[in-house]
Amino acid sequence: MKNYRVESDLLGELQVPKEAYYGVQTQRAVDNFYITGQKMGDYPEFVKAIAYVKLAAAKTNHELGLLDDKMTDAISQACQEIIDGQFHDQFPVDMIQGGAGTSVNMNANEVIANRALEIMGYEKGDYQHCYPNDHLNLSQSTNDVYPTTVRLTVIKMNQILVKHLAELNNSFRKKGEEFSDVIKMGRTQLQDAVPMTLGQEFGAFAANLDEEITLLNNISNLFLEINMGGTAIGTGINAPQGYALLCAEKLAKLTGEAFVSAPNLVEATPDTGSYLIYSSALKRLAVKLSKICNDLRLLSSGPRTGINEINLPAMQPGSSIMPGKVNPVIPEVVNQVCFKVIGNDLTVTFAAEAGQLQLNVMEPVLCASIVESMIFLQRAMDTLRTKCIDGITANRDVCKNLVMNSIGIVTALNPYIGYKASTKIAQQAMETGKTVYDLVLEQNMLSKEKLDEILDPKNMLSAHDAIN
Amino acid sequence: MKNYRVESDLLGELQVPKEAYYGVQTQRAVDNFYITGQKMGDYPEFVKAIAYVKLAAAKTNHELGLLDDKMTDAISQACQEIIDGQFHDQFPVDMIQGGAGTSVNMNANEVIANRALEIMGYEKGDYQHCYPNDHLNLSQSTNDVYPTTVRLTVIKMNQILVKHLAELNNSFRKKGEEFSDVIKMGRTQLQDAVPMTLGQEFGAFAANLDEEITLLNNISNLFLEINMGGTAIGTGINAPQGYALLCAEKLAKLTGEAFVSAPNLVEATPDTGSYLIYSSALKRLAVKLSKICNDLRLLSSGPRTGINEINLPAMQPGSSIMPGKVNPVIPEVVNQVCFKVIGNDLTVTFAAEAGQLQLNVMEPVLCASIVESMIFLQRAMDTLRTKCIDGITANRDVCKNLVMNSIGIVTALNPYIGYKASTKIAQQAMETGKTVYDLVLEQNMLSKEKLDEILDPKNMLSAHDAIN
Amino acid sequence: MKNYRVESDLLGELQVPKEAYYGVQTQRAVDNFYITGQKMGDYPEFVKAIAYVKLAAAKTNHELGLLDDKMTDAISQACQEIIDGQFHDQFPVDMIQGGAGTSVNMNANEVIANRALEIMGYEKGDYQHCYPNDHLNLSQSTNDVYPTTVRLTVIKMNQILVKHLAELNNSFRKKGEEFSDVIKMGRTQLQDAVPMTLGQEFGAFAANLDEEITLLNNISNLFLEINMGGTAIGTGINAPQGYALLCAEKLAKLTGEAFVSAPNLVEATPDTGSYLIYSSALKRLAVKLSKICNDLRLLSSGPRTGINEINLPAMQPGSSIMPGKVNPVIPEVVNQVCFKVIGNDLTVTFAAEAGQLQLNVMEPVLCASIVESMIFLQRAMDTLRTKCIDGITANRDVCKNLVMNSIGIVTALNPYIGYKASTKIAQQAMETGKTVYDLVLEQNMLSKEKLDEILDPKNMLSAHDAIN
Amino acid sequence: MKNYRVESDLLGELQVPKEAYYGVQTQRAVDNFYITGQKMGDYPEFVKAIAYVKLAAAKTNHELGLLDDKMTDAISQACQEIIDGQFHDQFPVDMIQGGAGTSVNMNANEVIANRALEIMGYEKGDYQHCYPNDHLNLSQSTNDVYPTTVRLTVIKMNQILVKHLAELNNSFRKKGEEFSDVIKMGRTQLQDAVPMTLGQEFGAFAANLDEEITLLNNISNLFLEINMGGTAIGTGINAPQGYALLCAEKLAKLTGEAFVSAPNLVEATPDTGSYLIYSSALKRLAVKLSKICNDLRLLSSGPRTGINEINLPAMQPGSSIMPGKVNPVIPEVVNQVCFKVIGNDLTVTFAAEAGQLQLNVMEPVLCASIVESMIFLQRAMDTLRTKCIDGITANRDVCKNLVMNSIGIVTALNPYIGYKASTKIAQQAMETGKTVYDLVLEQNMLSKEKLDEILDPKNMLSAHDAIN
Repeated sequence: MKNYRVESDLLGELQVPKEAYYGVQTQRAVDNFYITGQKMGDYPEFVKAIAYVKLAAAKTNHELGLLDDKMTDAISQACQEIIDGQFHDQFPVDMIQGGAGTSVNMNANEVIANRALEIMGYEKGDYQHCYPNDHLNLSQSTNDVYPTTVRLTVIKMNQILVKHLAELNNSFRKKGEEFSDVIKMGRTQLQDAVPMTLGQEFGAFAANLDEEITLLNNISNLFLEINMGGTAIGTGINAPQGYALLCAEKLAKLTGEAFVSAPNLVEATPDTGSYLIYSSALKRLAVKLSKICNDLRLLSSGPRTGINEINLPAMQPGSSIMPGKVNPVIPEVVNQVCFKVIGNDLTVTFAAEAGQLQLNVMEPVLCASIVESMIFLQRAMDTLRTKCIDGITANRDVCKNLVMNSIGIVTALNPYIGYKASTKIAQQAMETGKTVYDLVLEQNMLSKEKLDEILDPKNMLSAHDAIN
Repeated sequence: MKNYRVESDLLGELQVPKEAYYGVQTQRAVDNFYITGQKMGDYPEFVKAIAYVKLAAAKTNHELGLLDDKMTDAISQACQEIIDGQFHDQFPVDMIQGGAGTSVNMNANEVIANRALEIMGYEKGDYQHCYPNDHLNLSQSTNDVYPTTVRLTVIKMNQILVKHLAELNNSFRKKGEEFSDVIKMGRTQLQDAVPMTLGQEFGAFAANLDEEITLLNNISNLFLEINMGGTAIGTGINAPQGYALLCAEKLAKLTGEAFVSAPNLVEATPDTGSYLIYSSALKRLAVKLSKICNDLRLLSSGPRTGINEINLPAMQPGSSIMPGKVNPVIPEVVNQVCFKVIGNDLTVTFAAEAGQLQLNVMEPVLCASIVESMIFLQRAMDTLRTKCIDGITANRDVCKNLVMNSIGIVTALNPYIGYKASTKIAQQAMETGKTVYDLVLEQNMLSKEKLDEILDPKNMLSAHDAIN
Repeated sequence: MKNYRVESDLLGELQVPKEAYYGVQTQRAVDNFYITGQKMGDYPEFVKAIAYVKLAAAKTNHELGLLDDKMTDAISQACQEIIDGQFHDQFPVDMIQGGAGTSVNMNANEVIANRALEIMGYEKGDYQHCYPNDHLNLSQSTNDVYPTTVRLTVIKMNQILVKHLAELNNSFRKKGEEFSDVIKMGRTQLQDAVPMTLGQEFGAFAANLDEEITLLNNISNLFLEINMGGTAIGTGINAPQGYALLCAEKLAKLTGEAFVSAPNLVEATPDTGSYLIYSSALKRLAVKLSKICNDLRLLSSGPRTGINEINLPAMQPGSSIMPGKVNPVIPEVVNQVCFKVIGNDLTVTFAAEAGQLQLNVMEPVLCASIVESMIFLQRAMDTLRTKCIDGITANRDVCKNLVMNSIGIVTALNPYIGYKASTKIAQQAMETGKTVYDLVLEQNMLSKEKLDEILDPKNMLSAHDAIN
Repeated sequence: MKNYRVESDLLGELQVPKEAYYGVQTQRAVDNFYITGQKMGDYPEFVKAIAYVKLAAAKTNHELGLLDDKMTDAISQACQEIIDGQFHDQFPVDMIQGGAGTSVNMNANEVIANRALEIMGYEKGDYQHCYPNDHLNLSQSTNDVYPTTVRLTVIKMNQILVKHLAELNNSFRKKGEEFSDVIKMGRTQLQDAVPMTLGQEFGAFAANLDEEITLLNNISNLFLEINMGGTAIGTGINAPQGYALLCAEKLAKLTGEAFVSAPNLVEATPDTGSYLIYSSALKRLAVKLSKICNDLRLLSSGPRTGINEINLPAMQPGSSIMPGKVNPVIPEVVNQVCFKVIGNDLTVTFAAEAGQLQLNVMEPVLCASIVESMIFLQRAMDTLRTKCIDGITANRDVCKNLVMNSIGIVTALNPYIGYKASTKIAQQAMETGKTVYDLVLEQNMLSKEKLDEILDPKNMLSAHDAIN
């Protein structure tokens, strides 16, 4: 017995696995595109998103009298099943394909059509009762369905990403509180500067990344403008009047996201501006995470020949040759993920620039790069939080001794003895190895009481009271 | 007679040109850094910005009782003169320098101090009466002055950039109106798609770039959070309490920009997040401009062997060997500027990632790259507008004939005869060279009246009435 | 019964699956690093390479009297089995990890040790008889093993890549021959230029890509300098004298590649220069492929509203809404792969720049990015060759008519009537729509015989005979 | 009296400054392109290069009988004068222009023509006796002249760049010798590793950069293939047979560079492969320089809270607020230059990818970016050498003490007591603060004599003798 059925399209007939819900056009895409090995079905939010879009389209067509009750019900049920997590293995199209997303759109059209056929009591492939192009694609085009799907995908994945980011920030914040009384030297240009607390340093990491939550959420909102109803090139050919607005409304209701119809659909169709700036926001997160990981590696450097102010939890023996060595492997892997995200942003930039005339045909790689970056960042942040930040401890004595021996604290004397005199003290400290404290006293520049007050580290941690 | 005066600093004595308002530290910077040949003084908004910052700082110090009336008056006058355009030639520091902006800050401190000395009736260099570090830098550090200066610079330059952008968009919009009745074929994936108007195409360019005005303005607002009062590392050492808030208030009042003090100055000091995302926004503008220029070159390709739907104004003979050739030289130069801007964004990315611990020492290249991109974009957009867009004309007959001969219009038949039957008509048209119109009539698929109505180009330009 | 065994390391005990050949350190890496989901075992050439390196090291240790016959034999057999394709599923470490490759090195040490134990008749985990660190890592460190492994991997994968590239070039070359008599217009700046043949155009694609074979092979040779024997930081601590040279010799003999020991092992250990420039060479290939695909899409644009000089084979229906549309989906997917490769090169750039002091800890992402680019390029080139280039056909009449109607052929008149007179003819042709041929005859500028000779397209395809 | 003359071209008449050697087309370029403010005349090697190309072309035309003696002599003299440094101010075209270099080619044609007219006794502008298009451009096109000019420019500038690079490397090498007896700890992953000398570290910098000399020279040789004689699109239209080979030969003889005619001129005309990989080589140099500067900043960090193994010469006071602070300003500025070079490489990548069909019209930005990178790198390397490397001193005691206190030296015990026992010693050292030395003796693991021998730093600096 045959384990396939025969379907046909513009190019002729083709065998499709008998049990497959997808059809001839998906099969062609599988045959044509073997690039990354990453399939659409590997990204649940992506599959769910296209089901939502198809559901909104069907409901809109139904309300406008273009789709009858029976077919609408069957299509709706099929879409809902996909949203609920079923049939994701029926989306085998490679994440990077030619055709501007046509294969992805047709994959959804075919799976939903065949599942709807089943629901209505027909055989898979019996398309006269529900045809992927005429019924599932009704009033639609890949060129509005695909971008809208990617937009919904990114919005939903952004919510997940931001949640994981918030957890990481909380970990930084907690460490900031834990270290609020650890006085240490701040460094600028890798040179001794002035005192601060380790708590301020970790608190700043949290505050720095909190801004990313705001930015990602704000920029993610740009995806709320969709071009459903624009069809092929934004002119709306083959869509009925009112379709665009109604479909946006339905999609908003179904997903809980405030979708609106773009004011200029001809503009919106080829536009990849939102992807570009969202990818830039991911890049910004990556740059900040990378900077923070660089700092963590600096602060934990040593133990004997580096800064050694903090200890990262030991996750694995650090060296195959150097016994007892423990390396900052978690920040290191996060750095590397950040470099991938930065690379992906360049891919997105090229893909966006390559758009021509009424469509940007490079959207699949743009989508693939963004969702890869999001997944990688999410995993990296979880790894960083649970396997590094939460277990960091401070070397309080090391931190304190560095402050005591530093020359940088001479800065606090400026308001009292002026920059020029302070400079001389600093030079003498460098040359003689003496401490700033001793030198000031030796030269009777300030009273011991005043000096103690000024150089009390706690008094150097914030703006001072008026000097008089 | 000597044409120099001798000044000294931590490193010893140095000769400074006698007439120079700048002093020893500026001179060291000039000696140390000869990289780009681009000087701070070449960017008026940059010089004015630091004068505003120094003015706000002086007024804050005065109000807090740290600076007396006389010196405050002299400093204020000196700052105002710089704001009014004087002394810009006294800012010779290369745009790219080491030291995290210290040379730029000291350049301003020295010029303003020396000018203030003159105003107060002293000689240049007579610093006991007004000392660059003690008085001009009072309650300040390079690490809050320099970033705040760059922020103000970008805010002001952004306003100029956006103004030029708006003018370009108006030109696109006008052409959109002029071409509103020019029917032409839309193209997706460089293949014939469905009809649209040339006016829709140019209107979409305007709408597409209008979004950049919104984005640039929104992201530019991120620069309104400043770290004045954070001094060396954000802890506020050597600044009096209340300084940070008051200085932000004064700067806001002086500049008319809604500056506020950053909520976490330790975080704000090394943070380059705003630069990073603003540079990304410039990149987005560049990507969009490049895409539009690519389209203009495609649409004007030919005249005989290309698309030839529009004519760009001839700006120069196109070829040294091919007589009569006219090339799209203006879009070409704009493309190239866009590539520079994209490259500069990568420079910014590297510079931002390279920040370490309590400071990002790479800020000068970050500043230099952003302002270069802004200047280049402004010039490129003016060039594009005045030397290209405003003079574009349409080849109406070419546009119309392409629609009439196209197969893509078969799309409009889908709702009436279905995708499958339409596909057959398209195939026959390809094979026989016949028109879609003739084939449909031959096969009695629709009445002539109905077909005329459906295929009337005007009816294909927008969503249709309900089908019944 | 337990399905695990317990192993221990610096950090304590851990359960390892009982049947696993890998051990505690691999298990820690699996637990620590879940980033890409891509495992070392997914890249056969990578796994084979580390087996070769371990084999060469064992043989060197044996020859230098550090490893006895029995253990050497067992290790050698284990390595050979891996080279022959066994146990690749025992390499579960994520391609992107922290630790500068320690996990990868230890994964190999553990798998080979355990397999060697089996061969010698011991139980897995009975490390007293063969210890991953002491015996498998003898005279070695991750810091020489990992880079050497990556170098061998890239050399071998480069040979495969170049083979696929050569096949693509052959396809272009064949088409060049097939189209050697198709006369068409050349275009510069998308404007009509002068005549050429379609064969010249395709032949140039082949010639252009042939250069990539040379470049990739030349640059690949940079990987032949290895740092085995440098151990931890290149000083050779714990390696016996003579080890470095002998190990390079053995590896060369085993692999057939002309490996030599780097002249300065301290320099070689952290150096990523070869990766950087090899990645740049991959980028160059990507840029060229992308440019060629852009050309293919331009030349096949239309069919009615574009250039339409060639037909790409139809691989799938092009549109979900526009019947009969066939899109250049294969060049499109290749473009997108090229953008990924360009993005990966940026990742490599960041990773290379991030090296610090005696090691570059970012090598895993550098390796992961390069091998991903190689695999993607290989698949893309095969796809392009078999699904596009081999099936391209020429529209000979279209090509010819464009030449006949062009104005650009006026260029050929320069040597006879001068640039200025030719310019006038070109202008008149533009304005009147007349042909160059008719205008020249009308104005008696050349005899009909001479003009026929000059404007014979065949005479415009190459340098001319001396004019007299 | 008028201070201008009137010239005309395809677009009509235009005023040109009376004294200008350039003509109407240069004037149009000046009017059309105001982008960077950087002029061709600012780059002497660029101006000289085009004079060489025009000279070679004139001599070739003369030898082939196309140019008479008188005009050839006049043109030759004019070219030679430019090569000798005259008239460079007559090249006002902006480095970034549209037109694929046409303005640059015509600028040269006009200047040389007018100077030749003078030499022959005619007035400037009296083009009937020597016409920029007919005589100066004879057998040529912008599309072969411009790329050939850029190639010669880069070859000559590369020689200068490499000379400066070699000087830098010598400085590193000298420091390596000076520091050959300074024992210090090596670091991997910023963690204590094993001993080395500071001399090995600086010697490795020299060796690492020496490879760049080789690479730059090798890749620079790719520019020796030129496309003179290809004219407009590589078919050689309007060039006589034999011209291509003869012109390459003449250019080689004139310049002393081994130029050859590209084997496939149709391929060579739009090809930007050499620029792309040369730019990548500049990027590699930048990445390496940046890594080295990062290391210098790490090694000189402190003085009290960092590594402090070396002192960089103090070039300027480091801080406007922190007295006595000296910062690594020179490595910092070099880092920033490196980021610009990396950014420029991305610009080059975009420009190369944007080539279409028979020409890459983006060559000017590609040229501008490469020469900017070369100039910036040259200045940065000189700055680094003279203001930093040559003055570096070592803190010998700091270096030695770090070795003595380190745990990493336990590595040297592996061959004697095994990795597992060494690990235990390392752990105990960490926990107790005791030295490795004391712990080993306490536990009678090795005799004092043996231990002294093993842990003598000098014995840890290289591969050991056979162990027995």
